Amino acid sequence: MLDNLGDFKRDYFCGELTENNIGDEVRLLGWADSVRDHGGVIFINLRDKEGIVQIVIDPSKSPEQAYEKAKRVRSEYVLAVRGRVNRRPAGTENPKLKTGNIEVAVEELKILNTCDILPFPIEDNINVHEEVRLRYRYLDLRRPQMLKKLILRHEVYQATREYLAGHGFLEVETPMLTKSTPEGARDFLVPSRLEQGKFYALPQSPQLFKQILMVGGIERYFQIVKCFRDEDLRKDRQPEFTQIDFEMSFVSEEDVIAISEGLVHYLFKKILGIEINLPIKRMSYEEAINRYGTDKPDLRYGLELVDITDISKDVEFKVFRAVAQEGGLVKGINIKGGARLTRKEIDNLTEYAQKFGAKGMAWIKINEDGSLQSPIVKFFTQKQIDQIISRMEGEKGDLFVFIADKPEVTHRILGFLRKHIAEMMNIIPEDRWEFVWIVDFPLLEWDEEENRLVALHHPFTSPKEEDINRLDEALNNREIALSFKSRAYDLVLNGEEIAGGSIRIHRPDVQKKIFELIGISDEEAEERFGFLVNALKYGAPPHGGLAFGLDRLVALMTGSDSIREVIAFPKTQKGICPLTQAPDYVREEQLEELGIEVELPQEET
Amino acid sequence: MLDNLGDFKRDYFCGELTENNIGDEVRLLGWADSVRDHGGVIFINLRDKEGIVQIVIDPSKSPEQAYEKAKRVRSEYVLAVRGRVNRRPAGTENPKLKTGNIEVAVEELKILNTCDILPFPIEDNINVHEEVRLRYRYLDLRRPQMLKKLILRHEVYQATREYLAGHGFLEVETPMLTKSTPEGARDFLVPSRLEQGKFYALPQSPQLFKQILMVGGIERYFQIVKCFRDEDLRKDRQPEFTQIDFEMSFVSEEDVIAISEGLVHYLFKKILGIEINLPIKRMSYEEAINRYGTDKPDLRYGLELVDITDISKDVEFKVFRAVAQEGGLVKGINIKGGARLTRKEIDNLTEYAQKFGAKGMAWIKINEDGSLQSPIVKFFTQKQIDQIISRMEGEKGDLFVFIADKPEVTHRILGFLRKHIAEMMNIIPEDRWEFVWIVDFPLLEWDEEENRLVALHHPFTSPKEEDINRLDEALNNREIALSFKSRAYDLVLNGEEIAGGSIRIHRPDVQKKIFELIGISDEEAEERFGFLVNALKYGAPPHGGLAFGLDRLVALMTGSDSIREVIAFPKTQKGICPLTQAPDYVREEQLEELGIEVELPQEET
Repeated sequence: MLDNLGDFKRDYFCGELTENNIGDEVRLLGWADSVRDHGGVIFINLRDKEGIVQIVIDPSKSPEQAYEKAKRVRSEYVLAVRGRVNRRPAGTENPKLKTGNIEVAVEELKILNTCDILPFPIEDNINVHEEVRLRYRYLDLRRPQMLKKLILRHEVYQATREYLAGHGFLEVETPMLTKSTPEGARDFLVPSRLEQGKFYALPQSPQLFKQILMVGGIERYFQIVKCFRDEDLRKDRQPEFTQIDFEMSFVSEEDVIAISEGLVHYLFKKILGIEINLPIKRMSYEEAINRYGTDKPDLRYGLELVDITDISKDVEFKVFRAVAQEGGLVKGINIKGGARLTRKEIDNLTEYAQKFGAKGMAWIKINEDGSLQSPIVKFFTQKQIDQIISRMEGEKGDLFVFIADKPEVTHRILGFLRKHIAEMMNIIPEDRWEFVWIVDFPLLEWDEEENRLVALHHPFTSPKEEDINRLDEALNNREIALSFKSRAYDLVLNGEEIAGGSIRIHRPDVQKKIFELIGISDEEAEERFGFLVNALKYGAPPHGGLAFGLDRLVALMTGSDSIREVIAFPKTQKGICPLTQAPDYVREEQLEELGIEVELPQEET
Repeated sequence: MLDNLGDFKRDYFCGELTENNIGDEVRLLGWADSVRDHGGVIFINLRDKEGIVQIVIDPSKSPEQAYEKAKRVRSEYVLAVRGRVNRRPAGTENPKLKTGNIEVAVEELKILNTCDILPFPIEDNINVHEEVRLRYRYLDLRRPQMLKKLILRHEVYQATREYLAGHGFLEVETPMLTKSTPEGARDFLVPSRLEQGKFYALPQSPQLFKQILMVGGIERYFQIVKCFRDEDLRKDRQPEFTQIDFEMSFVSEEDVIAISEGLVHYLFKKILGIEINLPIKRMSYEEAINRYGTDKPDLRYGLELVDITDISKDVEFKVFRAVAQEGGLVKGINIKGGARLTRKEIDNLTEYAQKFGAKGMAWIKINEDGSLQSPIVKFFTQKQIDQIISRMEGEKGDLFVFIADKPEVTHRILGFLRKHIAEMMNIIPEDRWEFVWIVDFPLLEWDEEENRLVALHHPFTSPKEEDINRLDEALNNREIALSFKSRAYDLVLNGEEIAGGSIRIHRPDVQKKIFELIGISDEEAEERFGFLVNALKYGAPPHGGLAFGLDRLVALMTGSDSIREVIAFPKTQKGICPLTQAPDYVREEQLEELGIEVELPQEET
């Protein structure tokens, strides 16, 4: 039999009780974190969201009814307790508990609910398959570290809105049932029942709506908002994710960057007590690629890319020479202390590089005695070797690794290798917060597959002012277009992109030319985002904005390996919710009402 | 040619300038609200989100370049202005403008963007079809009253979170891509690409997830969240709408009601400066139906329902007598001063009643001379007439209207009639805020169509504690089940339901019996909400909560006729967004990837 709560109210949370409460009668509510029977005396650790306190049911002191109930209590039963706070007998204190010097002698006990056998214990360090944790998320969330993460996420929400509302931003909700937004990923579709055969799309971002709001004179908009992308869920992505989204009118890059920096400074200070140095350093896209092989460089460690293409031009080693002579790049990384790596470990590095498309990986080891070990040094003159060592700033005990390929391939592979090496060598400081703005992105890039120019960010990103006058010229000469820089900026923290934005195009003539450059016809532009192009004709102010990936930001702030750790009900890599088993089959009538049918490819044969 | 913004920054918003700025050089940004050319001198009302100020371009004083540009300016051009604040010449002040005593003599003018011919003027009182306003929402939002509504909505968001976060509620996001929630309406479905043939559902509310969070030990949760219902969009509903949603553990009705009252008190005080008297009065469901014919009574006016069934039992008038003798209800409303209504107006009332299913409407008019006028008085004795007049508290000049039918029909029709009469007689005070809690709802009702018991709220609503012990009995006798009361509560403001909630079932055995009572089999329960039922087995605490309809609340607070007025981008009654034209057709490849096909019913023939 279960007890009713009735009008029972707690006086304190369990974790709040202190020695000052000794002698008080208190009422508590919570879960039986653990239950022990010591020779007839029953000890229960009672837990609520604020912590744990020990309650004691001694058959010689507590009422018989309470004792009879206490004998039935198992882990995670829900209890209401009235009792008196006592100092624990000398020698029985528990220094691991904040309330370890006290206990509560039970005078009344209610069992409000029972609990089945637990699939895993409610404690921080468990070794349980993630899918099991997600299936029983209601138990997983009771673990103190999960609650702590949700609390930090809550604090990020509140502080973000405080900051932005305090800076004159207006919170506006944009629609979830809308039209395709052109962010490059696949849309989730929602069949319309009232307009059969037509579909809503869930927004990949509120991009077009926030621009419309600027045209609407809102001047400063923000929203913490769900976005949706139907991607193959590699790399810790979720089909639905949360953005801190804002947009401002009459601004340049500097204004958007200042607000963004102010926001992260406020969040880190208020929530983590960490002072971020402002302004955050900036690095051009080109410099980031050249030095780190990526536009999301992790600046917590060195391992910079060193260019030896010039030296490679006339070496005997054919791989280097050919690449150097044909416009490719030969670049290397000096792994300090890497000479201690075994041949097997170096082979593993090579394999890792090959996974990302490397044809091979050359290496030179400088032994502690100064001798060189390498499969390739025999193809170099002593002078060339000396030049390379000097360029790489080589010392005894170092290991150089090299990639030679087309520039973008060399950079991409070394970008991945650099990160991998840093992890392998265990040289990433855990307590550093390295922010960097990446700026001066190319406006466009050449898409080999589609055989056309595409926008590096999205087609609403403004070119630099000086490039706007060259748009007509570029329409006749795509090479010129490839030299254009955009007014975009990404914020990178510890090698992860946490925010991205740009100054947008506000002139309809410029927008039209950009569409033309990337091969979007007038008709397609009209059909896909005619409403934005039209809006630009009605007094659109200059504007720009930014969006933070909130899940990623919170994951970094909580030191979580995955964004799934900071989402209350995440989906697996396959887009499945193990708790609810969504997605699921639906009734045939539902599909009929929507005017759609399931038509699986394999059924066609 | 358009000008670049460059690093131009405003010093003030237009509406902020005062006589204290006279003599200052200021820089302003905004839209040309109006342009007038007075004998060569050009006057422009420059508008931004804070208001309007007049700028003057006098060819004899302003630089020629500025004058040449000013001549090109048309309504809603986007301008940057540098100039000096002057007192307006005597006699030219504009008392309608807050800045009407000053003007800005232009020294530099930039045209940042142009504007096509406007489809409607940017001013508050316009007479434009709503669909046109929605298609050009970016222009509509520039109208000061629309901005004001969005600002108030923003304030409701911020103050709501301040209040709830301040009371220990944790903001947690629940999934948008999830499984059907059983709220009675149709789900919007989202086809899964990774699991072809399966579908996500958009949440009708976070009901199950917030209960899961309580099982997860969160204790106090809140969220301002989008919800989705695929209904036929009558009665000012939207397919997506916003809820203020919260849930609490270890609580009774009183706790949830106290937090809810605290929240509305805080919102009305902080945002409107209005002090709501607490506690808010409560009324049982039964009393609301009996007195007002609805469970959403508007208490700003009288027009209460009066029961004359007993008097009707032996009148000669057959309609009344038959209904009274067969268990129906004969009830009337006394329309004070209604005797002045014409026969035509009374016929219109009858027609209105018939639209809602009335077979007819009887009426008695008490003329100013005390004589009666009525098609039915001849069927009553003088004593019966006297009884009716006395019961109805009739006076000279009154009009009684009566409905006789089955109890629920009589109540429903009189409920609608009462509201209609109040509007017609123009007796609704605009400045009153009449809150009332409706409590003691029946737990279950009989669904004629489905021939089974259904939950009046939802199947997770707890019965009253005294009824829980009678569940087994009720399984054998449905009459008993119909007498059960639930622990639900709805908050009504001025005749609109603005919030609803309940104490939930937290015991798996009780939940199982409720499912059984409403004819949900174990299998169906398992399939549809097995995850909740399972969660209840693992130490679910007693819990309850509430959700406010935020759109409705903001509509009431801003005096808006429709929730569409307080949603930035609403849809029409047909679920269409006139701005983006969503929903829309999609490419065949998109459907193929999802494994679905459009199969319209008419194509089958």
